[in-house]
Amino acid sequence: MKRISKSHREATSLLAFGAHPDDIEFGCGGVIAKETRAGRKAHFVICSRGEAGTHGTPAQRVAEARKSAALLGATVEFIELDGDAHLEVSVAHTIKLAGVLRRIRPGIVLAPSLVENQHPDHAKLGQLVRDAARLTRYGGLKELRRVRPHAIEQLFFYAVTPEAEPPGITPVLIDVSAPKIMSAWTAAMEAHRSQTSARSYVELQLTRARLRGLRAGIGHAIALFPNDPLVLDSLAQVSRSARRF
Amino acid sequence: MKRISKSHREATSLLAFGAHPDDIEFGCGGVIAKETRAGRKAHFVICSRGEAGTHGTPAQRVAEARKSAALLGATVEFIELDGDAHLEVSVAHTIKLAGVLRRIRPGIVLAPSLVENQHPDHAKLGQLVRDAARLTRYGGLKELRRVRPHAIEQLFFYAVTPEAEPPGITPVLIDVSAPKIMSAWTAAMEAHRSQTSARSYVELQLTRARLRGLRAGIGHAIALFPNDPLVLDSLAQVSRSARRF
Amino acid sequence: MKRISKSHREATSLLAFGAHPDDIEFGCGGVIAKETRAGRKAHFVICSRGEAGTHGTPAQRVAEARKSAALLGATVEFIELDGDAHLEVSVAHTIKLAGVLRRIRPGIVLAPSLVENQHPDHAKLGQLVRDAARLTRYGGLKELRRVRPHAIEQLFFYAVTPEAEPPGITPVLIDVSAPKIMSAWTAAMEAHRSQTSARSYVELQLTRARLRGLRAGIGHAIALFPNDPLVLDSLAQVSRSARRF
Amino acid sequence: MKRISKSHREATSLLAFGAHPDDIEFGCGGVIAKETRAGRKAHFVICSRGEAGTHGTPAQRVAEARKSAALLGATVEFIELDGDAHLEVSVAHTIKLAGVLRRIRPGIVLAPSLVENQHPDHAKLGQLVRDAARLTRYGGLKELRRVRPHAIEQLFFYAVTPEAEPPGITPVLIDVSAPKIMSAWTAAMEAHRSQTSARSYVELQLTRARLRGLRAGIGHAIALFPNDPLVLDSLAQVSRSARRF
Amino acid sequence: MKRISKSHREATSLLAFGAHPDDIEFGCGGVIAKETRAGRKAHFVICSRGEAGTHGTPAQRVAEARKSAALLGATVEFIELDGDAHLEVSVAHTIKLAGVLRRIRPGIVLAPSLVENQHPDHAKLGQLVRDAARLTRYGGLKELRRVRPHAIEQLFFYAVTPEAEPPGITPVLIDVSAPKIMSAWTAAMEAHRSQTSARSYVELQLTRARLRGLRAGIGHAIALFPNDPLVLDSLAQVSRSARRF
Amino acid sequence: MKRISKSHREATSLLAFGAHPDDIEFGCGGVIAKETRAGRKAHFVICSRGEAGTHGTPAQRVAEARKSAALLGATVEFIELDGDAHLEVSVAHTIKLAGVLRRIRPGIVLAPSLVENQHPDHAKLGQLVRDAARLTRYGGLKELRRVRPHAIEQLFFYAVTPEAEPPGITPVLIDVSAPKIMSAWTAAMEAHRSQTSARSYVELQLTRARLRGLRAGIGHAIALFPNDPLVLDSLAQVSRSARRF
Repeated sequence: MKRISKSHREATSLLAFGAHPDDIEFGCGGVIAKETRAGRKAHFVICSRGEAGTHGTPAQRVAEARKSAALLGATVEFIELDGDAHLEVSVAHTIKLAGVLRRIRPGIVLAPSLVENQHPDHAKLGQLVRDAARLTRYGGLKELRRVRPHAIEQLFFYAVTPEAEPPGITPVLIDVSAPKIMSAWTAAMEAHRSQTSARSYVELQLTRARLRGLRAGIGHAIALFPNDPLVLDSLAQVSRSARRF
Repeated sequence: MKRISKSHREATSLLAFGAHPDDIEFGCGGVIAKETRAGRKAHFVICSRGEAGTHGTPAQRVAEARKSAALLGATVEFIELDGDAHLEVSVAHTIKLAGVLRRIRPGIVLAPSLVENQHPDHAKLGQLVRDAARLTRYGGLKELRRVRPHAIEQLFFYAVTPEAEPPGITPVLIDVSAPKIMSAWTAAMEAHRSQTSARSYVELQLTRARLRGLRAGIGHAIALFPNDPLVLDSLAQVSRSARRF
Repeated sequence: MKRISKSHREATSLLAFGAHPDDIEFGCGGVIAKETRAGRKAHFVICSRGEAGTHGTPAQRVAEARKSAALLGATVEFIELDGDAHLEVSVAHTIKLAGVLRRIRPGIVLAPSLVENQHPDHAKLGQLVRDAARLTRYGGLKELRRVRPHAIEQLFFYAVTPEAEPPGITPVLIDVSAPKIMSAWTAAMEAHRSQTSARSYVELQLTRARLRGLRAGIGHAIALFPNDPLVLDSLAQVSRSARRF
Repeated sequence: MKRISKSHREATSLLAFGAHPDDIEFGCGGVIAKETRAGRKAHFVICSRGEAGTHGTPAQRVAEARKSAALLGATVEFIELDGDAHLEVSVAHTIKLAGVLRRIRPGIVLAPSLVENQHPDHAKLGQLVRDAARLTRYGGLKELRRVRPHAIEQLFFYAVTPEAEPPGITPVLIDVSAPKIMSAWTAAMEAHRSQTSARSYVELQLTRARLRGLRAGIGHAIALFPNDPLVLDSLAQVSRSARRF
Repeated sequence: MKRISKSHREATSLLAFGAHPDDIEFGCGGVIAKETRAGRKAHFVICSRGEAGTHGTPAQRVAEARKSAALLGATVEFIELDGDAHLEVSVAHTIKLAGVLRRIRPGIVLAPSLVENQHPDHAKLGQLVRDAARLTRYGGLKELRRVRPHAIEQLFFYAVTPEAEPPGITPVLIDVSAPKIMSAWTAAMEAHRSQTSARSYVELQLTRARLRGLRAGIGHAIALFPNDPLVLDSLAQVSRSARRF
Repeated sequence: MKRISKSHREATSLLAFGAHPDDIEFGCGGVIAKETRAGRKAHFVICSRGEAGTHGTPAQRVAEARKSAALLGATVEFIELDGDAHLEVSVAHTIKLAGVLRRIRPGIVLAPSLVENQHPDHAKLGQLVRDAARLTRYGGLKELRRVRPHAIEQLFFYAVTPEAEPPGITPVLIDVSAPKIMSAWTAAMEAHRSQTSARSYVELQLTRARLRGLRAGIGHAIALFPNDPLVLDSLAQVSRSARRF
């Protein structure tokens, strides 16, 4: 099968969904930087312009997101669902996101986690993406009949805050310690200037990544939570320890 | 750092612990076959001669284990703890196993899972190995002062039966579908002739691996349960999906 | 109380809900065969015609479902909610299903499990049925004022795939090993010819039931997950062991 | 198969283990009364004389236990392990209890739950019984070579207090509402006169059983927690609902 | 900071949400009585008139709720969402409740728990309140632009029945043993005369509170489940034990 | 009741157990500093001299612990169990610790958490203390007959590392942000000079406390995990929110 041999030669693309203009950067920006620097294409789909936040106009938020995505080596687009703080879970949205997945055809998909005790838009978007990743495989869906079905490789959840980390899933930790990765990630977070002035968002994320790193005996790490068990060809793929204490 | 560059050139060795002569084969024999065929050294440490089982003499059991290990490409040794169905969790045993770990110096360690609702020896050995993997790092342990401390890369638990699969850990699935792997594994299980005559052990394991495989859209798969989160350098290491239904 | 004495003489009827034409058969068809052969009436309510699937037209799917239900000894009806892959959880649907429950007046109700990481329609239908089973007891519901309230005996969830098995509920296992039960179940699954050609659905379910059976020391078994604890008059009702390894 | 047909004609016996002279009565005395009144034989094995309690001498405690067992229709014996508040989990004890199981050859076994946040002896005895129920099946155990192996039907855990109810197991509820059952149970608890004077033990258990009963729409109920999934021949065995609110 | 010093001098107000006219009283009425008798203001927001219940007209239910709130020392208001047994989770409702929160500006908020296996309105209202408590902090929400944002101190969930108690949250227990508290609570429950005639609601709650109390060595207690960890200035705030058995 | 009124005038004493000379300081030193500065007496019982560690002699370790306890305002004693990395769970040890509890008669007890995937001594000491806190209440324990029984107020677990935080218990967070508390805690950790040179222990704990603080909108916080639900007289005791993101 050609597709599979190709996927071993050339990394599939990564698609990250964010409910607000800064969610991807704060939740897993270091992972994006690492993957793009390793040659993987990354694309962001952002589902509001942050218009319900306390700080920043929609125009500012969009500009910040564009600048931040560029710093991480990713392209970015905005789609309309219900607007910031107004997101509803509906089949129409699921199908819309499945359409995005069929168009972009990513291997890796990142979405906010399903833990509900956080900004309501986050968990709702996570649900929509999880269901969309499934519907995109079904051939008979009439709304998407013109676009070829697509099966992603894996869906990972990221957690915008520690509270959003799903307790029932063992995470994988991505080592983001390299100085060029950390500085790209930090710059991307700081590009969301309208948000970072008011609260300690950047410090929250760097503290979190440092704590993950200290526990694993490395510099900084970001946790991702796989939606399904990982399939490995060999243990050589995962032979680094995550415990130093 | 020399050690790390080396570990990228040459796989570290694998050490699997079994409470009885057939536990490793039934719980994760396909993984052993896959790793040894990929060039990794594997060694088995078996902690009883199966002397409390309904079938087979200790001498038969040892002979079966030696034949089975050879079929999987692994070396094997027997150590004395308390004997079959008599295993106790004690610090003396933990230190003895830590001594084994310092002698063999494996990267990957496999041990039976900690779920208690199975043969009592299994979970107890799992506990002993987990604690031993930690003590082997501590420099001041007087009983082991003559052997240099050692830090393993990762401890994975295997489950001898489905009941032993730990519900709180997301597994990784090892694809063992290749015919040569499946036939080596099956032969290794059948080498335990004294056990396979009486009950459907081999069918249990093949059914289990087939069910894991069907779910993931491949032939057969075996689940391993990491003791600590996996640390990755890149998502490229884990980009295969585990869901087909 | 007359009703109760009667329920001891004559089994109450069973009502199974499916989101798609083949869900009941694949998820718990063997249980249906066993109950109808023991004299219990069984009725299926199917909530779509499978029109979003990759294979099979709605007309084919309906015909397959009718044939399959007949093989299991059940009657079948189709109701309209939102259509395949379009199901939404809403109070209107809940009340519609409560109306079905008041009309059929079953003792046992079967519905797909609430685990969300599966086809989205399954968990949504499970939620609707769970809530409907409750609303059907409330006397003041204006939409259903003309139909007498009804209290079911027990709601059991079935899991269409292993991923859908709810981790927090201890299942009961139904022994479906008898050859006539197994052949009726297999025939019922194979009656969904449009679906079975493309993927290993039948093998998935038979492998799953065999694994459950092997673990319990019997031939084949299907797990059902009770929504509420079972009330027993005596331990004699449940005195068979489910562990052979 | 003769054995099975017989087990349908004649209930297997029940064996309940208690760490202290009153544990069985307080934890599940109503179930014992119900089973013995339905014709099942019941036997108690008590593993201390309550000598570390604040109230009552060992001789009093033994006399109370004998009187209480008689009120419940059960026979009783005392065995020596390590003494009240001194119980240790050891293989020697496990084998001793396995020997008891081979001698009594019960179908149903009751033991205190494994939740550790209670009197330490309770959970330890639960562990010993769980492991003993397994070892009693193994033919090669040298200490028990003279006694034929035995496989029990099911192990249920009882909880001496609400804190001891295991959160991960769905219980079955035994209806103990009948006046003759309730009065036998109450009398059995009150027979432990040295204990009931000081604290509200009897009220605790009656309140607990009433709350379980109210929830299920019956008078009083006692929860038992199966160690393994129940295997059923038919849903007719379990078709009573446990929810009234 | 003035606000904080003031909150140490004068208790913030309490706002309790109920889906039906009697939910607050049955779920946590004793806590309300205790807090109002200690000088805290309490207000109830009730989101239906119980019009789908088997007993009682909407007018009766409203009158009962007013009388009951008065007995507990609380004020009460009714708001319209979708009506009894018709509640849907929607952003419009969330924003409406956030508007209530900004108007009342409570410190403590009480809402029904999120466990879904109960009357569907309860868990849905709990979700709405949880999300509303978050949205009420966001400055940019256009629908609420005219009302100043507000941050509550803590959201606690109450459970209308034992089934609704969330298994994953450690509760805090409020001691309601004082005779004047118990009699106010009992009177408040009995004020819902249309409901208490038909089922054992009052007995259910008193039995439940007595069981909690017995376990903690006090008279009666009610469990509340915090949505977020409690922040303490000193362990002196929580130094009472909750275990007597 | 005099005892209770007194406990409202004068805080009961706090007793913290540590398996190694630095566990208390690293796991919850800031809490100790806060409590002693608020006038509560604190005493440490340390159960080894750290003789199996890679760095530091027993004499150094003891001296460091004495200095550190003094910086936190606590007294300290060392007891012999089995020695560092050799701790076994036994009834003899439980009774020895119960004897300590009867001698010191604390209100609050702190012990390492029961999570097993950490230094084995930690969880074992946690188990011993939990059981000892129970046995210390029993009047008939012959080994302790000369010392009056004692009931503690509450047992809290601390976690020496993030991995040791028990996932099933909702923690309480102690605000340790005040500069004098933070500097006392930091000095106490740094007093363990033999340990802090080699690894980032101090940074690990400060990062962890900062992350807890950031999440709660305060400076730094330490999580404690109650063994039993907290009993409150009023919600005023716990009315601070723990969520800022």
